[in-house]
Amino acid sequence: MKYFAKIKYFGKGFSGFQVQPQKRTVQGEVCLAAKQVFSSDAAVTGCSRTDSGVHANEFCLTIESEAATVPADKLPLAFARFLPEDISLFYAKECDFDFHPRYDSIGKEYLYRIHNSRIQDPFLVDRAWFLPRIISDEGLKKMQTAAENFVGEHDFYTFMSAGSDNVLDTVRIVEYLKVERCGDIIEIRIRANGFLYNMVRIIVGTLCEIGHGRFLPSDVPGMIAARDRAAAGMTAPAHGLYLNRVFYPEEFSL
Amino acid sequence: MKYFAKIKYFGKGFSGFQVQPQKRTVQGEVCLAAKQVFSSDAAVTGCSRTDSGVHANEFCLTIESEAATVPADKLPLAFARFLPEDISLFYAKECDFDFHPRYDSIGKEYLYRIHNSRIQDPFLVDRAWFLPRIISDEGLKKMQTAAENFVGEHDFYTFMSAGSDNVLDTVRIVEYLKVERCGDIIEIRIRANGFLYNMVRIIVGTLCEIGHGRFLPSDVPGMIAARDRAAAGMTAPAHGLYLNRVFYPEEFSL
Repeated sequence: MKYFAKIKYFGKGFSGFQVQPQKRTVQGEVCLAAKQVFSSDAAVTGCSRTDSGVHANEFCLTIESEAATVPADKLPLAFARFLPEDISLFYAKECDFDFHPRYDSIGKEYLYRIHNSRIQDPFLVDRAWFLPRIISDEGLKKMQTAAENFVGEHDFYTFMSAGSDNVLDTVRIVEYLKVERCGDIIEIRIRANGFLYNMVRIIVGTLCEIGHGRFLPSDVPGMIAARDRAAAGMTAPAHGLYLNRVFYPEEFSL
Repeated sequence: MKYFAKIKYFGKGFSGFQVQPQKRTVQGEVCLAAKQVFSSDAAVTGCSRTDSGVHANEFCLTIESEAATVPADKLPLAFARFLPEDISLFYAKECDFDFHPRYDSIGKEYLYRIHNSRIQDPFLVDRAWFLPRIISDEGLKKMQTAAENFVGEHDFYTFMSAGSDNVLDTVRIVEYLKVERCGDIIEIRIRANGFLYNMVRIIVGTLCEIGHGRFLPSDVPGMIAARDRAAAGMTAPAHGLYLNRVFYPEEFSL
């Protein structure tokens, strides 16, 4: 049987999603739990790789096992017994064998949380980027104006970390990029049809430098046109980033 | 100089507030930080003891040091350099030398968070009590009805853990006890003029057993009258509990 499933995880304890030798990964832990649930090996395929320390409120994957007979609606409780406390599987549905959680996805939404305060909050450690230099209301408006310049179809080469193995296919469509402040938390939400390596974190770092006045909102088109990582701002840290939603065509009725 | 200050802390890493030999405590860490800030020893006095694993959104204390010359409004940033990441000092004001954060308090509010869901949430581990048996809407109403029976002046002997050194002065005034559900979180807020050892946790445990139908709301007056720990329900775990607010008479203008 092949299941489509949604998990959430707190990223701190993982070297990202994808299995790597000698490292604790989300995929590795889900595979171990699946082996217990089905008393047999299972193939676990994710919708994306996430970096070390990145969190997921909703990460989609498939679990395929010949030995699987558990009804999909029983899967969350079955996995709850065997998953570690930093991962939970909260939704499952049977899916076609040719469904692929990564290639069939039509978009993803990431959430980035910034704790913009002079004083750190013990409850936000590892869950938001602590940025002690305050972004003024004017700075926040600049970030919102700048954000509009990212929306649409662009070559995001500038907003990709060196070390990516992909340098040819760097055009993506950003559907929205929203910046909102709620108390001392700034939340940035971005949906695109796909993301380059570290793209969200470089966009967030650049937006914060715009908020602090190092760049202007009107600099963004030039940064994009430069196709040069050095033209953009810093890379925001991993622990503020959450994969928040994954989108599939309605025909799959997931 | 003597300062009145407010701190928050994530309780997991502490054996409670009060200094104990060989244990990591909040008071111990604040003392160490104060020694760095003032280059001299300081007396740190808290508004209450909290148990191991209990959190504080707002805990009040005084810091007294002869060598202290830092203006009160600079104290949060001065302490930020030296406190560990699970404690922050977010407010300070100069106070009279005869002010006592515990004896001058006229009440405290505790918040208890329950994660009432079949499936655990990785982001709530150590921050809410995971209660997988679902409390129905009817059960929640029973908890709310039962809560009213705790309000007012009562002898709360039943709702005190064995091992307390106080068995004589067990009358307290509960000003409110509110039970609210928001999604899969149940929040319980209680304000009283003082609390007995484990009083909030035993009240919460009892309310949940009422929610599950083991007791009736109308059983509460009898439990109180019994003056017997065995008459009440279970003690809810420490990691769902937050000291949320401390009240002082207006004359102190803290």
